Amino acid sequence: MSKKRGAKKLSKGKMMHSKTHAKKEEEGPKEIAAKIRELAMEIVKDIYAGRNPKFRTKQRGRSNVLFDIEEGIIRLGEKSTTRTFLNIAHAKRFLQTMLVMSKTYEYLTSNKTASIREVYYELKHTIGNTKENTFDDQRESDACIVDLEHSIDTIREKLNVHANPKGALYGDITLVDRQHHNDTFNCLKLGRGGWSIMSRMEPHEIEIKKVNANYVLVIETSAMYERLIEEDFARKNKAILIGTGGQAARGTRRLIHRLHYEHKLPVYVFTDGDPYGWYIYSVIKQGSMALAAHSELLACPEAKYIGMTLEDVEEYGLQNVTEKMKPGDIKRAKELLSYEWFQNKPWQKELKKAINLKIRIEQQALANKSLEFVAKEYLPKKIKNKEFLP
Amino acid sequence: MSKKRGAKKLSKGKMMHSKTHAKKEEEGPKEIAAKIRELAMEIVKDIYAGRNPKFRTKQRGRSNVLFDIEEGIIRLGEKSTTRTFLNIAHAKRFLQTMLVMSKTYEYLTSNKTASIREVYYELKHTIGNTKENTFDDQRESDACIVDLEHSIDTIREKLNVHANPKGALYGDITLVDRQHHNDTFNCLKLGRGGWSIMSRMEPHEIEIKKVNANYVLVIETSAMYERLIEEDFARKNKAILIGTGGQAARGTRRLIHRLHYEHKLPVYVFTDGDPYGWYIYSVIKQGSMALAAHSELLACPEAKYIGMTLEDVEEYGLQNVTEKMKPGDIKRAKELLSYEWFQNKPWQKELKKAINLKIRIEQQALANKSLEFVAKEYLPKKIKNKEFLP
Repeated sequence: MSKKRGAKKLSKGKMMHSKTHAKKEEEGPKEIAAKIRELAMEIVKDIYAGRNPKFRTKQRGRSNVLFDIEEGIIRLGEKSTTRTFLNIAHAKRFLQTMLVMSKTYEYLTSNKTASIREVYYELKHTIGNTKENTFDDQRESDACIVDLEHSIDTIREKLNVHANPKGALYGDITLVDRQHHNDTFNCLKLGRGGWSIMSRMEPHEIEIKKVNANYVLVIETSAMYERLIEEDFARKNKAILIGTGGQAARGTRRLIHRLHYEHKLPVYVFTDGDPYGWYIYSVIKQGSMALAAHSELLACPEAKYIGMTLEDVEEYGLQNVTEKMKPGDIKRAKELLSYEWFQNKPWQKELKKAINLKIRIEQQALANKSLEFVAKEYLPKKIKNKEFLP
Repeated sequence: MSKKRGAKKLSKGKMMHSKTHAKKEEEGPKEIAAKIRELAMEIVKDIYAGRNPKFRTKQRGRSNVLFDIEEGIIRLGEKSTTRTFLNIAHAKRFLQTMLVMSKTYEYLTSNKTASIREVYYELKHTIGNTKENTFDDQRESDACIVDLEHSIDTIREKLNVHANPKGALYGDITLVDRQHHNDTFNCLKLGRGGWSIMSRMEPHEIEIKKVNANYVLVIETSAMYERLIEEDFARKNKAILIGTGGQAARGTRRLIHRLHYEHKLPVYVFTDGDPYGWYIYSVIKQGSMALAAHSELLACPEAKYIGMTLEDVEEYGLQNVTEKMKPGDIKRAKELLSYEWFQNKPWQKELKKAINLKIRIEQQALANKSLEFVAKEYLPKKIKNKEFLP
C-alpha cells in the first residue's frame, strides 16, 4: 500500500509528502503507544534529573496555518509551543495533558476506543482533598487531545479516540472489521440504506478488502444519496457512493482518503451549488484550517467538483428552481473567493457569477427535469466529458 | 402479522385501536393509490356536475390534538376542514394539492420514491403565460403533503415520499429490501458501523425477515451506540441496538414501532437525563403533537425509559459528572412536567427532582465509572430488575 502510493507520488516529484504521508499512514496502535511512552519517559527523566518537566506541541492559531500549493493541502506550520509543569499558567494544563496521555496509552494497549466525550467523563474527578476538578469542561480535555495529536504527529483516531460518526457508504466494496469478529461484508448488498460509516476508519480497524469500482462519488445530501441508490446508479456506473449528510465527518473523510490512496480511485464531489456546498468540497479536497495538522491523512487533493454549478443552471434551464442567496451566503461566498485554494480561473469565475447573480442551486433541483435525470444524464455526461471544477 | 397484533391488542381490550391500526399498517402502494384515485374521482364528479370541487382534510392546530389515555398515544381529533376550488383564498392551495396528489399517485404506480424536497422541485414551474409559480417555497408543497396524508389517513412514507434518513441499526436481525434486488442481510455482521436506517421503512419495502433478540434498546447518542457495539452488548444480551443520533427520524421511529408490534419485542429507551432526552423518549413512546395524526404507525406506547435518571446519580455516585441545567433547560423541564403524558408519579418525581437540583446527567457520564460499566453493569442490572420509568 505505502509502496504503491510512494511510487505514485514519486512520479509527480512529491517525495517529501509521500514519505511523511506513508509513515503516518502506517502507524498502528503499537507505534502510537510507543510514541506516547517515549514522550512520557522524557518527562520522567526530567523529573529524576530535577529539571522542570516540559511538553512540546504545535501552535495552532491561524498564523501557523499555511496552504501547501505543491501538495494542494492546508497544513500546520513548524511553530511550536512548550508547556512546563513548574509554571502557574501551565501547571493544570500540564496535569490534564498527562491524564490524557496516560488514558489514551491505556486505550491503545488494551484495545479499547472511546469518544472524546467519554474521555472527558472518564478523566473527570476531584483531586485528593481539594475542591479542584481535573476537568470542568469537555473543551479542556478536547484541547489536550489536540495537543497530543500535534505533539506525536498523528490523528486522534490513531489514539483510539473519536468524535461522532456520520455518513453512509454504498457500492461494490468489501470491508472487514478486524477488531470485531472479523465481520466481512459487501456494501452493495445492504438494501438501499447502506453501511453506516464508523467514526474511526483506520486500516488496523477496517480493512478495505476489495473494491470493484471506477470512482467514488461523494454526495452532500442524504436524500440525493438515496436517490442515486434507488436509480441503481452504483451498479450501472460501477461507482462507490458516499453520503456525507452535510459536512463530512472525520471518519467519512478518512474513508474517502483511503479509497483514493489505497485503491487509486478518482473522487468526485457532488454538492449543492452554494457556499456551504463549496466549503464541504474544499474541506474534503484540501482539508480545513481547524484541522490543518491532519490534512495529510484526511484530505484528498486530487478530488474534483462535479456540481452543482451555475453553468448547469443555464445548460439545463434551471433558472426557475434556483434559490436566492441570503446576505450571509453572499458574505461567505466572498470569503471563499479570497481563499488561496480557490485561486484558479474556473472557481473564481464560478464564485463571482454566484455573487453577481445572488443565486444558489441545490442538487435536488435537478428533480425539476425528472427524478431519474441526475442518474441517467447529469452525472454520466459530466463524468464522460470530464466536466469538473478543479 | 396483523392477526397477531390484533390478538395481542384484543387481550388488552383495545379493539378499536387495533382495528384501525392493523388496517393502516396493511395498506400498501396499491391501496394508497386507489385512495388517491377515489379522491380524484370525487373531484372530477364535482366538476362534471357543475359543483364547486372540494378537498377535505383534518385540522391540525393544537386545538385538534388530544392525548388518548386509553391507547397512550397523542392523536389528531375529528375536526376537519374543507377547501374549495372556487374560493380566492383556497384556489392556489387547491391547485397545489392536486399537483401533489397527481405526483404521489405517479410515484406509487411507477414504483418510484422521492424526498419531500424533490417533490417540491419536481412540481415547481411557472404556470402557462403567467409569472405565477406553482410553488415558491418548499413549505407550500410540504403542507400539501400533510393535507393529503390526513385526507387519506396515512403517512407520507406510504405515499412513497420521505424526509431525510438518520439512525443506525445493529443486532441479529435479518432484513430484506424487497424493492432493491431483494438484498438480504443480517445486521449483526456489518462490523461496528451497522446498517444505515432508510427514510422509508414500510413493510412492502423492507421486510423484517428474522429477529433473534430479547428486546430493542434505543440509544440517543451515536457515541453510546458505538460504545455498546464495541462492548459486544448486542451479542451478549441478545439485544437489537438502534442509534437515533438525537431526535429519532421518522424511518427510525417506524422501525422501532414495527419491531415492537410485528415481533413483540419490548422497547427500552436510553437517553441523557435531560429535557432533550426525555422529549426524545416521549416522542418515541406516544408520538408528537406535530405528527399527532401518525402516532398509530409511528409511536410505541409500551416503550419504557431505562435511563439516565437522577436516581442513577445517587446510586452510582455520579454527582461529580452531572452538568448544570441552563435556564432554557429548566423552562423546558417545567413544560414537560405539565404534559398530560408525564402525569404519573415516577415521572413527576423525576422531573421535579431535576428542576429542584437544576442538574442534568448524560449517558456518557457513566464512563466515569469505566468504559465497560454501562454494558457490564448499568444496563443489565436495570433490565434484570425492571428498573424503568413508565
